[in-house]
Amino acid sequence: MPQDHAFSEQDKEAVYRAIAERRDMRHFLPDPIPESTLTRLLAAAHQAPSVGLMQPWHFIRITEPRLRESIHRLVDAERKKTAEALGERGDEFMRLKVEGIRECGELLVVALRDQRDKHVFGRRTMPEMDLASASCAIQNLWLAARAEGIGMGWVSLFEPDELARLLEIPEGGQPIAVLCLGYTEGFYPRPMLEEEGWTRARPLTDFVSDNRWPDA
Amino acid sequence: MPQDHAFSEQDKEAVYRAIAERRDMRHFLPDPIPESTLTRLLAAAHQAPSVGLMQPWHFIRITEPRLRESIHRLVDAERKKTAEALGERGDEFMRLKVEGIRECGELLVVALRDQRDKHVFGRRTMPEMDLASASCAIQNLWLAARAEGIGMGWVSLFEPDELARLLEIPEGGQPIAVLCLGYTEGFYPRPMLEEEGWTRARPLTDFVSDNRWPDA
Repeated sequence: MPQDHAFSEQDKEAVYRAIAERRDMRHFLPDPIPESTLTRLLAAAHQAPSVGLMQPWHFIRITEPRLRESIHRLVDAERKKTAEALGERGDEFMRLKVEGIRECGELLVVALRDQRDKHVFGRRTMPEMDLASASCAIQNLWLAARAEGIGMGWVSLFEPDELARLLEIPEGGQPIAVLCLGYTEGFYPRPMLEEEGWTRARPLTDFVSDNRWPDA
Repeated sequence: MPQDHAFSEQDKEAVYRAIAERRDMRHFLPDPIPESTLTRLLAAAHQAPSVGLMQPWHFIRITEPRLRESIHRLVDAERKKTAEALGERGDEFMRLKVEGIRECGELLVVALRDQRDKHVFGRRTMPEMDLASASCAIQNLWLAARAEGIGMGWVSLFEPDELARLLEIPEGGQPIAVLCLGYTEGFYPRPMLEEEGWTRARPLTDFVSDNRWPDA
């Protein structure tokens, strides 16, 4: 029977719950994440699909307080540049909390590995599929963290070349994410950018069409 | 207490199981996916995080058999070009099954929407974060499908401009995935590219380092 490989109702619900309750978090408790839990989260990430099984990701765990501080400075500089680029919404943007780098229990940087050019399978016309695979890995980590009761925030406010220099990432590699991970007093009930009135999510029906692009 | 927001042990296991047993599938049964199930899968995708809450994705459901056939032809043409680009491994590549477009119960195309330039939040230095967000949406769909006992394959073997033309995707939009979805006789126990001897996945320990890039 086609449905033979489905999970039980309870297990299905658990997967949907992780998807529904995952949030991009910016508020954290300082409690450390146990090593064994962190390893489970990284193993979940590493089980992601990758184009041609190239596994294009690398995870750098930031344990040196000075380095964490440098990353914070780098993100804060980009935060100001983004505010300038946003023009009239710049001040409003500056009032948003966009990261929890100093507070979170664990800080990770995810980078695309160097020497990815060797991998042609599934990337001849779209070399950016390596970023797609690494993003699937990060989403795995995010969902596993939610199940563990751990919040995560993906910060992309940084100059990649500067972060690469700071972490000695070789030519051809590229940092794509600063991940703040930590326990939290509570997960936001809705995306924080909605809670704060920055923007509103639009419903699924606006994002699906049959056989072609929808008419404008 | 920090751990207060964790799922129950059983629910945690369900999330980890979906992550561990998800596969990039290329073999499908022809049985259709019920509408209500497909809607749940798309809703799971649409709950993904997105940079600045921009929701950069669009899902095109392919229901016309002629269109499905055109997409198959387009992918098959790229398959041959990839084989040529692979040189000495080209023949080996041509023997792999790389998609199930003709057999699967449901065929979707995911595209990045047009007019993404307006969204600066989190993308000033890395505009490709829209692809990262859309990839998180696809990973949500993949995991929800696994829980439902439905296999999925992400096909990236196509010329994006040609697929865009076929589906009337406007200037500025870009197809990033042909998704084959369907019930299956069984999920591969390991990634199919391992099963077939194309390549071997490397262990997590090769992909983690502290504070900087690992020494070569």
